[in-house]
This record gives sequence, structure tokens and C-alpha cells, in this order.
Amino acid sequence: MADSLAIAILAAGKGTRMRSSLPKVLHRLSGLTLVENVLASTAGMNPTRKLAIVGYEAAQVKDALAHVEGIEFVEQTEQLGTGHAVQQVIPALEGFEGNLLVLNGDVPLLKPETIESMLKTHTDNGNAATILTAQMDDPTGYGRVFCDENLIVQEIIEHRDCTEAQRKNNRTNAGIYCFNWSALMTILPHLKSDNDQNEYYLTDVIKDLSPVMAMDTSPAEVAGINNRKQLSEAEAVMQRRIKDALMLSGVTLINAESITIDSTVTVEPDVIIEPQTNLRGNSVIKAGCRIGPGALVENSTIGENTLLVHSMVTDSAIAAGGRIGPFAHIRGQAQVAENCRIGNFVEIKKSTIGANSNMAHLSYLGDAELGAQVNVGAGTITANYDGKYKHKTVLGDRVKTGANTTLVAPITIGEDVTIAAGSTLTKDVAPDCLALTRSPQKTIPGWKPRYIREDSQP
Amino acid sequence: MADSLAIAILAAGKGTRMRSSLPKVLHRLSGLTLVENVLASTAGMNPTRKLAIVGYEAAQVKDALAHVEGIEFVEQTEQLGTGHAVQQVIPALEGFEGNLLVLNGDVPLLKPETIESMLKTHTDNGNAATILTAQMDDPTGYGRVFCDENLIVQEIIEHRDCTEAQRKNNRTNAGIYCFNWSALMTILPHLKSDNDQNEYYLTDVIKDLSPVMAMDTSPAEVAGINNRKQLSEAEAVMQRRIKDALMLSGVTLINAESITIDSTVTVEPDVIIEPQTNLRGNSVIKAGCRIGPGALVENSTIGENTLLVHSMVTDSAIAAGGRIGPFAHIRGQAQVAENCRIGNFVEIKKSTIGANSNMAHLSYLGDAELGAQVNVGAGTITANYDGKYKHKTVLGDRVKTGANTTLVAPITIGEDVTIAAGSTLTKDVAPDCLALTRSPQKTIPGWKPRYIREDSQP
Amino acid sequence: MADSLAIAILAAGKGTRMRSSLPKVLHRLSGLTLVENVLASTAGMNPTRKLAIVGYEAAQVKDALAHVEGIEFVEQTEQLGTGHAVQQVIPALEGFEGNLLVLNGDVPLLKPETIESMLKTHTDNGNAATILTAQMDDPTGYGRVFCDENLIVQEIIEHRDCTEAQRKNNRTNAGIYCFNWSALMTILPHLKSDNDQNEYYLTDVIKDLSPVMAMDTSPAEVAGINNRKQLSEAEAVMQRRIKDALMLSGVTLINAESITIDSTVTVEPDVIIEPQTNLRGNSVIKAGCRIGPGALVENSTIGENTLLVHSMVTDSAIAAGGRIGPFAHIRGQAQVAENCRIGNFVEIKKSTIGANSNMAHLSYLGDAELGAQVNVGAGTITANYDGKYKHKTVLGDRVKTGANTTLVAPITIGEDVTIAAGSTLTKDVAPDCLALTRSPQKTIPGWKPRYIREDSQP
Repeated sequence: MADSLAIAILAAGKGTRMRSSLPKVLHRLSGLTLVENVLASTAGMNPTRKLAIVGYEAAQVKDALAHVEGIEFVEQTEQLGTGHAVQQVIPALEGFEGNLLVLNGDVPLLKPETIESMLKTHTDNGNAATILTAQMDDPTGYGRVFCDENLIVQEIIEHRDCTEAQRKNNRTNAGIYCFNWSALMTILPHLKSDNDQNEYYLTDVIKDLSPVMAMDTSPAEVAGINNRKQLSEAEAVMQRRIKDALMLSGVTLINAESITIDSTVTVEPDVIIEPQTNLRGNSVIKAGCRIGPGALVENSTIGENTLLVHSMVTDSAIAAGGRIGPFAHIRGQAQVAENCRIGNFVEIKKSTIGANSNMAHLSYLGDAELGAQVNVGAGTITANYDGKYKHKTVLGDRVKTGANTTLVAPITIGEDVTIAAGSTLTKDVAPDCLALTRSPQKTIPGWKPRYIREDSQP
Repeated sequence: MADSLAIAILAAGKGTRMRSSLPKVLHRLSGLTLVENVLASTAGMNPTRKLAIVGYEAAQVKDALAHVEGIEFVEQTEQLGTGHAVQQVIPALEGFEGNLLVLNGDVPLLKPETIESMLKTHTDNGNAATILTAQMDDPTGYGRVFCDENLIVQEIIEHRDCTEAQRKNNRTNAGIYCFNWSALMTILPHLKSDNDQNEYYLTDVIKDLSPVMAMDTSPAEVAGINNRKQLSEAEAVMQRRIKDALMLSGVTLINAESITIDSTVTVEPDVIIEPQTNLRGNSVIKAGCRIGPGALVENSTIGENTLLVHSMVTDSAIAAGGRIGPFAHIRGQAQVAENCRIGNFVEIKKSTIGANSNMAHLSYLGDAELGAQVNVGAGTITANYDGKYKHKTVLGDRVKTGANTTLVAPITIGEDVTIAAGSTLTKDVAPDCLALTRSPQKTIPGWKPRYIREDSQP
Repeated sequence: MADSLAIAILAAGKGTRMRSSLPKVLHRLSGLTLVENVLASTAGMNPTRKLAIVGYEAAQVKDALAHVEGIEFVEQTEQLGTGHAVQQVIPALEGFEGNLLVLNGDVPLLKPETIESMLKTHTDNGNAATILTAQMDDPTGYGRVFCDENLIVQEIIEHRDCTEAQRKNNRTNAGIYCFNWSALMTILPHLKSDNDQNEYYLTDVIKDLSPVMAMDTSPAEVAGINNRKQLSEAEAVMQRRIKDALMLSGVTLINAESITIDSTVTVEPDVIIEPQTNLRGNSVIKAGCRIGPGALVENSTIGENTLLVHSMVTDSAIAAGGRIGPFAHIRGQAQVAENCRIGNFVEIKKSTIGANSNMAHLSYLGDAELGAQVNVGAGTITANYDGKYKHKTVLGDRVKTGANTTLVAPITIGEDVTIAAGSTLTKDVAPDCLALTRSPQKTIPGWKPRYIREDSQP
């Protein structure tokens, strides 16, 4: 059996250089906050304990992570260094046996396979600690890790304390650690802050543990986010990963650089994603769809073989065979059944639409229930709001509304009803009728508009 | 006189790594399928014979190429190697005299000038065969071509059969060949498959032909497409070529990376293409236009000095001086004459619009014929569909439709007619009239909405 | 006191390779013409004189720069070289004492700090002239500047006149000069054109001045624009600068490459700019906004904490707390007060909207004045245009218009009025009323559409 694993994520910093009222770890990267990205990278390891060390704007961070199953919060009320941060988990982990993985809430690009490989190195070698390291082209500013030929760590020296010769060592400390918890507990409580900064450094425990091993990974994976330019650079790396994986799995991206796809989105094979498309949240794009250009899909499911052009779908579901857009907006738990055509300048809010229905132009359907094979004429509007309450509009199967129809809710229109163009209906209509409001058409020959009449006055 | 030229395009593969139900050569790159891109690169050579060797989903491939004048299809029912593929053209080329150019349907970036240069090398030197080669930084996996100092080919050895020393040769076989057909016919029918893979290798003919010459080109040009990541990379190369050529010819691209332009599109000088614009198919953008941001133009002509913002035009023509958008959709063989204003949330389908007409807001015109100087009021809708058939709306010159006008087709409105706001017309109107349907305006003082009335009940 | 500074910008060229009817210096880069970009880079130096040397299409260039305070135009009617160009400013600068900075109208990427540093070098060293130079990887084609170890210029030799040895010198003349005007005036009037090209070279004055010093800057800064590909490359550099500065100041850019931001735009911290967004002209985006995806903002102010999705705002102002889009268009000096909701397919032109008002769907408001807490029903349209004149619509506080309301302007609707759905109002309505036009609802049972009636005829 594998050893128990606890993870502790450092998430207490403010991140001054983000120049934000939001704590740094709550800035978003490809759909998740930085700290959620870090948590996501450990999901496959099934940790038995998940501790987030919070401090700056702790309430905000807790709120943002409240949805994470099994998350525990540990408060670090003062920011006295990484060692101090990890000391805060001691009470919570009383009696814990196993390994503690220490991650940084602002290092979001670490791959699950790297963490797994680090854990394997740690347990296979019976290490007291394993340190993730990266060999950098320019290691200036980073703490250097000195190892023997077996990657057994001899010493960690901060950049400012290095000699010129030591600075030539380009193996740097990535700040990601795996500790044998029992071993760490022999040292951690006794950590001192007798240094220039008066901080408790987690690296100070290393010299008293044995064996400690380093494991190299790529510098890109352990890049920390300190400002929004670095956030943008990390986003580019993450997007490249997401898109490469999708392309290799059978998804075509046209002008891939112009597209964004959250890490939480599922896209099935033989989907074509057109330029300027943004796929977000818990969205699922099923096989055979063509999405975009200019589509925005958020927390929605798009059924097989649907076309979606220059449109926006949020918190909704489109069944297979839809033809959506351009310039459609579907939102608020709308449910659209198979083979519907939802066209130009059409908004659908919190409505259910039966199969094979059409609403092709200039319509607003709010709080409506449409049957199957309904044809919504151009300019049809549900007057669903009385100024205070929302009311329901029900259209039976095969209803046809004429152009510029107004339906004043609550209203129920029976099956097979035709509504004449330009009608405003306020009362229910029984099935199989023609319903209308209509004034007689009048014609005034020789009429001229006022500006001509008045301009031509003597 | 130049020798006759036949081309044979290998287009029989499935392309498993595309993970697609579509045969690989039918995936699209900048507006054309891969195999159409290959054909396009040979258009300038006026080949007398064009043979496509099809196999996997042959019917689909044939359908996709049916529009190519003079194309001939040769079926390769089993996939037994490149030599076997080319053997399939023997019956079709019986009696042919001249050269056979063998191209790969999944190598879409080869430039016409490279092919022309290869043909010239071939004929100028009286070669039995000429092989396109590329010197690669990392040739691992590719067959190596060994030449003397005059580029006369000595041997081609597959990567797996190379010695370590031979692997240092970075001149690789691009799989593009030009053969003297008579010379090839002395060997090709007798090709054997007595190798580990039991395949017929086209390279096996080389050792029996003389002289065979290599011609180097850039690795980028001969990159094959095996998965959708490579498709995306090839698209980036192709887009860069298309855009560079347009920019040098006098077209401004703003944020060029965010724009896509099919190779089939014509853009005249002094056009400005704004960001997030996609130009597709047989579209022509005439001089002086400003297109975008956010425009999609497909199979359409945009006349001189037209502005087109955040709009979509498909299968239609806009004459000079148009001001289109934002949020307009013009489609279905619509014909818009000079100096029209087509504005916000306006859809035009299969209609003709006379010169100097305006339809600036929230309108749908389907199956309509508008004269010149027509002013379509906001919210004007043609009710062109009776649930089964489409009917026509005709508006004479200088007609003005009021806001929220509904025109129930078939209907003809004479010249100089004004339609009052809010009217629904079902009958034809003679010229020079005011037409209207109108109920008298009523006012109910002190009226309160139901939710207030009901809330305030005792 | 600092010496007086005059600047002279060479802006007389045609720029044949731009292939444009527009003079080269009027092509635009990140929101400004090339020559305006050059002027902008000198703004911090407060020059006492600003001279633009114009020639090709001089009238166009003058028009484009007419807004620049203190600009003076000097005509160069013939294009006889850079020396000839600068000779044209002699009459204008009669009696001037101080330094003359000579800039190129097609070199738009020069940074203000580089110019300032050059001026400091010039004055600190009491130079007669200071030349901006760049060390290029490939200096082919550029004039070479030969200096001693103190950067005192010995000689400038055109590429074509260099020996092989001299061509190895990669320090090139960037064509940007600072002259002591009195020193220059001893030489400039006597410049000769006795060379192969019969041109007056400004570099010919250098050998007669002393001391002349070189100052190196990066090649990227002094890149000239000769065709639209170079324009595109310069745009990428400029956009990268603008975006990096914004990100470091606290603005998040999602898919930064897909966004364009003019150098004239102000964005406050804690703004999130979503993909495919273009910010232009004199726009201000206040703190806490989320702008995009797909937003276009031009010459507009967006108030704090406003959301703006897939919408276009030009020449207008939105106050704090707005929720705009998707698919809204706000234009023509529209003024939207706090906390308004402007939704799908809504166009607002030259209107003022009171606080806490909603117009969520399919509406057009032109030349309208809305009070506070107005609710504009879906499909409400102001008929503001009688075919010749625009008229005003006034809606009092708390007015509610029903769905598909038509308001025929000029019209005034009093406070607290409710307008029933489907009404067309032509007359003013007193406060606190219900207003409507309505025909009675009729129903015809068993009615069938004509195509069924006719199809079923015997």
C-alpha cells in the first residue's frame, strides 16, 4: 500500500505585484484560479488530506475553495516565511503518518506526472525529503541546490549568500517539497528565524534531514506567477497544453492561437473549433460539432453535429443537430431539443424548446415552453415580465407565430395554432385555431410626410 | 515543346492519427482540402493528365474532387505501399509519353515554384527520375538520400536500415518524385515486395534508373500532415504566406495573427482588414474597403470602399460604398446595390436591395425586392414564410416603412409609399399613398400593474 | 536651463512600397498615424518648435496633423535627399538658438527615453551633432558609422561605398540626428549634391562638424516602415509594449495576442480584458471592468465595474455598474447612467439613459431621453426619423414600455406610465397612466393555412 499523502498549499500571500484587490492565488488561469490549478494537478494522487494555508484575505480564498471536497484551511496570520507557513499545519496533522507534499499556490503549471514522479522518487528511495529542482539558463536570484552525483542534496544556498563559483550552479530550488512527515516533525517545530530577514525558511530543515534528494523538472513547469505578465505567459503555456492534447485526440482548431479553451472543458473527436471561439467552465462539445467563429460557450452542453456561429451559450444545453446563430444568445438553463434552428438576433432565456422547432430571426423567448415543430416567426416576443414578476408562455406542438407577434404572459397557446402576423395576444388560445389582433388596412392616397407638407407651405 | 506532364497524387490513406471519420486528405487547410491544396500547387504547370489514387473512403474523396476539371481517379483497393499505389496508374497511362510527377495528398505546403524548378531540373538534365529532398536538422525516421557532388543519387536507405555513419546524412527523401514515364515503365511493373513489411516501395525503382538526381527544398515545404497538430502548424505556415503576399501587395492587416484568409480569396490594394476577421471561399474584397473587426465573409463580393463591421456575409454581393454592421447578416444570394446602409441586427436573405437604401435597425428582409432609396424602418419584418412556401415582398423606389412594420408576403408596395409605424400590411398598396393599420391610442389614468393591484388588496 | 529644442520630422515621402493612395506617414499604427507616433514620442521633451517637412500629398498630411498644437509645416516640393529636406527648415528657424532634433516620420518605434538620453548625451558633451546608431546583426544596405573608443564619429560611409573590411562594422546610421543649430547653419546651406544620385545627403554635414558623437540604441527601435509587412511587424512590437505596461500596472489580458489596444487608451487596474477585444482612440476603462470577449470600444468611457460582452461602444459614456451585451451597440454621444442593463440586440444612439434602467432585448433608442428606473420592453423602437428630420422621444422616470412598443417621435411619456405590449403611440401620455393601442383578440377555430386549404382542394 502506498503511504498516506497530505498536501499543503501555500496560499497566504497577497501578491503585491499583481496590483489587485484580489489575493494572488485567486487570479484565474484557463478557467481555474491559480490555487485550483494547483489542486487539480494533485487530483490523481488521491491525497488523504488537503490543507490550504491561507492568510491575506483568507475569507475570500476560503470561499473560492469551499467547493473542494475535503479541503481544510489553516490560517497563517503573519507572513513569517515558508517555514512558518508549514509550521501552521502541525496541529492539523497531529497523528498523521505518511508524506507531506508542499506546493505553492502561485505555481500553477506543475504537471501531475511530475508530481507523481517526485512522489515515486521519494518513496522508492525512502527519502526524508525530496526537493523539486530546475536547471535554469539564468538562475540569478534563485536559491541553488548542491547535490552529489546521486542527486543527494548537500546544501541549499540562497543566491545572495552564494560565492561567484557557487552561482555557476544552475540547479535551482523550485520550492516544491515532499517530506516524510515524521522526519519533518523532528525538525520543523524547532525552526529558527535567526537570519537577516527574521523569517523561518523551510529550506533550513533540509540540512538536518537525511537522505534528501533533488529531482529536476523543466523550469517552465515551476515558474511562479508574480505579476500579470507572468500570468499571461503561464496562460499561453497552459493553453498550448490543452490545445495540443485536443488536437492529438482528434479536434481541429482553426487559427488555434485565437481560441481559448478552459482546462475544464470536454471536446469530443471530429469537432472543428473555428477562430475566435472561447470555451469555458464545465462545457461539453459533442462529436461532429462546428463551433465558431466567434462563439462563446460557458457551462453548457452542445449536442452532436451542432453548428454554432457567432453566438453565445451559457448555462444551457443544446441537443444534437442544432443550427445556432449567427448572433444568437441562449442562457439561463435553456434546454433546446434536437434539430432546432435558432437564428439571427434570437435570445432564449430559461426556456425549453421542443425538437425540430425554428426561431430564426429577431425573437426573444423568456420563461417559455415550446413543443415540437414550433415555428416562431421573426420578431416574436414573449412579454414575460410585468415589472415585478416573470410569467410563463406555453406554445403547443406545431404552433406557428406570425411575424412581430407579441405574447403577453402568462399565456398558453394550444397545439396547431397559427397566430397572424402583427398580433398581440393576451388570452389563451385553444388548439387548432387561427388567433389574431388586427386593425383594417387603410390607404390615404397622395399623402406626404409632414416635412414635405410643411416645407411646401407658402 | 515541353514534355507532357502527368501528375499522380497519393490520396488513398486513412490517416489514423487524424482520429477522424474523414479521410486525411479531405481535412481542410486555409479553405481547401489537403489534396486540393496539392492540386492547386500544380495548376500553373498545366498537366495533361491528373490522376488521384484513392482508396480509403474513395467515394468521399471522389466527391470532394469531382469539381476538378480533367481529374481521373484510380482505385488502390489494398494499401500495399507507395510502389503499389503508383502501379495502379499503369493502365490509365497506357501509351502516355512524358513525365510523371508523383505527389503526396498530405503534403500541402509544396510551392508551385519548387515543383517547377524540380521539373526544370528533371528535363534539363534528361533525368530518368528526380527526387525532391530536404536537409533536416533532425532526420530521425526519414529515408536518407545519398548523392555524389552533382546531386546524382547513389542510394536511398530507410532510417532503420542505416548504419550510424549513414544516419549522419541529413538529406531526406521527401516522397515527391518526377519520373520519365517510359523509363519508369521498364521497372515499375516488376517491383517486388520481398521485404520485412511486405510492401512495394517506390524507392526500389530508383536503383534501376539512371540518371536519378536529387533536388533539395526546405523541410517546411515537404512536411506531411499526420495529425491535427501538424495540420495546425501547416495552417500557420500557409496563413503566413497568404498574409505576407497580401501585405506586400498593399493590404493592411491589423493584428494579422487574429485574421484568417483562405488561399482562394482576392483582396485588392488599400483594403484594411481589421482584427478577428475571416475571409473565405471565392470572396473578393475590392479596393478601399475596411473589413472588420469581427467580420466573416464567405463566397461573397464586397464592393469598393465598403465598411463591414462585426457582420457576416455569405454567398452574396455588396456593391460599392456599403456601410454594413455591426451585427448584420447578409446571405443566400442577396444583392445589395451601391451606397446602402445595412445596420444593426438586420438580416437580409435572398433579396435585392436598390441603391442608396437604408435598413439600419432590427429588420428581416427575406425574398424581397427593394427599389432605390428605400428607407426600411427599425423593426420591419417581411413575413415571407407561410409555414410551407416562401413568398415575395416588393417595395418600390423611395418607399418608407415605419418602425415595427410587418409585411405579409406576397405583397407589393408601390413607389413613394409611406407605411405608418406599427402597421401590419397584408394587401398591396398603390404608389404614392400612406398605408397603415392602427387602433386608436387610449389612456387609462391611474392604472397600476396587476402585481401592485393584487399586492395592495386588503 | 535646458537649451531650446526644435524638432523636424521628415514626412515628405510617398512610400511607393506601401502600394497605397495614402502617403506613407499617414498609415496607422496602434491608433495613431506613423507621424503622430513620432510626434508622441517627443511630447515629454516639450519642444519649442515642431516642424513637419511635407511633400507628397502635402495637403493630406497637413490635414492629418492640423490638430497638433504648435505644428509648423515646411514644404519640400522636390525630393532631393535628406539634406535638402532639412534645408527647407532654414527660413522657419531663422534666429532660432538651441538644438534641432531630426526625426523620421516612418520610424515610429523610437522610445521617448531613447530620445531623452540622446539629448542628454548631446548637451552633456557639448556636441555639434549626435547621431543615433544601431548595431545590427545584418547591416547590409545601411550606412556604417565609424567611431573612436569614445563614440566620437570619425566617418559615415554608405554601404555601397564601403570596402569589404568596412562592411564588417555593424554600427549603422539610424537617420536620427540632434544638431546644434548654430553649428549646423555654418554647413547646411552650403551642402552639395555632387554625387551619383544627385541628392543632398544630411550625412555630408557630419565631416565638417565637431565633435559629433554616436549613441547606440536597439535596432528594433529605429526600424523604418517601408511596406505593410513591416507595418505589421512594428504593430506587433508596439502592441507588446502597450500590453506589457498594462499588465505590469494591474490589468489582466486573457489571450493577450488576440487583443488590440491603442496607445491612446487608458485602462485602470483590476480590469480584465477578455479575448478578441479592441480598445481604441481616447477611451478610458475604469477599475474593475470586465471587457469582452469580442468588445470594441472607441472614444468612449466605461465606468467602474462594468461588464461589456460582444458589444460595440463608440463616442459614448457608460457610467459605473453597467451590464452591457452581448450584441449591444451604443454610439453617437450616448450617455448611460449608473447600473443600467443594456442587453441583447439593443442599439442606443445619441440618447441619455437614466440610472438603474433596463433595455434588455431587441430595442432601438435613437434621440431619446430616458429617466431613471425605466424598463424598456423587448422590441421597443423609437420611430425617430420621419424621412428627413430626427425627432425626440422622452420617457419619464419609472416608465415601462411593453413588448413590441413603437414610439413615434416627437413624443413625451410621463413618469410612471405603463405602455401595453404591442402598442404604437403617436401622442404624448400624461404621468401615471396606462397607454395602449389594441385591437380585440379574435380566434377562428379550425382555420388552416392557405397552402393546406389549397393543397387539399379537390
